[in-house]
Amino acid sequence: MIILGIDPGSRITGFGVIKVQAKECLYVTSGCIRITKEATAERLKQIQDGINDIVAAYQPTEAAIEQIFMFQNPGAALKLGQARGVAMCALANQNLTVNEYSAKQVKQAVVGNGNATKFQVQHMVQSFLQLSSKPQADAADALAIAICHFHSRNSLQFIPGANKIVRGRLR
Amino acid sequence: MIILGIDPGSRITGFGVIKVQAKECLYVTSGCIRITKEATAERLKQIQDGINDIVAAYQPTEAAIEQIFMFQNPGAALKLGQARGVAMCALANQNLTVNEYSAKQVKQAVVGNGNATKFQVQHMVQSFLQLSSKPQADAADALAIAICHFHSRNSLQFIPGANKIVRGRLR
Repeated sequence: MIILGIDPGSRITGFGVIKVQAKECLYVTSGCIRITKEATAERLKQIQDGINDIVAAYQPTEAAIEQIFMFQNPGAALKLGQARGVAMCALANQNLTVNEYSAKQVKQAVVGNGNATKFQVQHMVQSFLQLSSKPQADAADALAIAICHFHSRNSLQFIPGANKIVRGRLR
Repeated sequence: MIILGIDPGSRITGFGVIKVQAKECLYVTSGCIRITKEATAERLKQIQDGINDIVAAYQPTEAAIEQIFMFQNPGAALKLGQARGVAMCALANQNLTVNEYSAKQVKQAVVGNGNATKFQVQHMVQSFLQLSSKPQADAADALAIAICHFHSRNSLQFIPGANKIVRGRLR
């Protein structure tokens, strides 16, 4: 199983790819799609093209993205929504089901505390994937989302019959 | 010149196509992409696929969409942003430059009053395009956006040298 985590943003979209082998999580790659274009439609196309390139290169079998509930600034919500929508649609175009996890779920899965700081997430991602240095913040968030999906998939397998029942929702 | 106007929404995305012949606006088609899927990524893909079908069928040469500034509800802004982002990216994928107009500009262009009601917009779209009945509300908004782009393009041609200067921004 190869999991692609996406942390969308209107300026920087983080991505992280992990591979699951014998129930262990291995780091594959991570990084950022940095938006350089000026016109909104072109900026969004850059996110889509970046995701298409990542999917072509690493052939993920599952995808996960952060679920967003709360905002203080509606203007920022609109911009983030545009980036998130394009990212989700790009994943759907590649026949990947997009699993959504809240920030709380991601932090809980990676740090064990739903209110963990960004620094704690970065630190735990580095430790969990045995990386020699801390990944960039957006890449770390994307890897954390992928790790959260791995834990969610994994824990379901320990509940007798759960995998069978839940597969329809997850796949 | 064939202009496609898009009024994006998370449930219904309106579209309207007009043709410009000898500086006159002719109605081509209009309607709605109605979202039936449940999963967010699949819903967004429906918007993208709908726009792809419209572009394939009517071969627009220009595209216009509403520019959004203000929101009262950040949750709604996120959802609208997702739909709008996918619509803009789908148009960019088809090599169409996406021209953005504020609601005020659209109402001013169609009704002559930036604070016009939805009903007034519907009425003036029907009258301007000589339609036998009022178009559905979202389709009327999309046609109004297309008409606004027509007026904007047209008025620039009357300013000596403007077309040459502004073409870079519009095209």
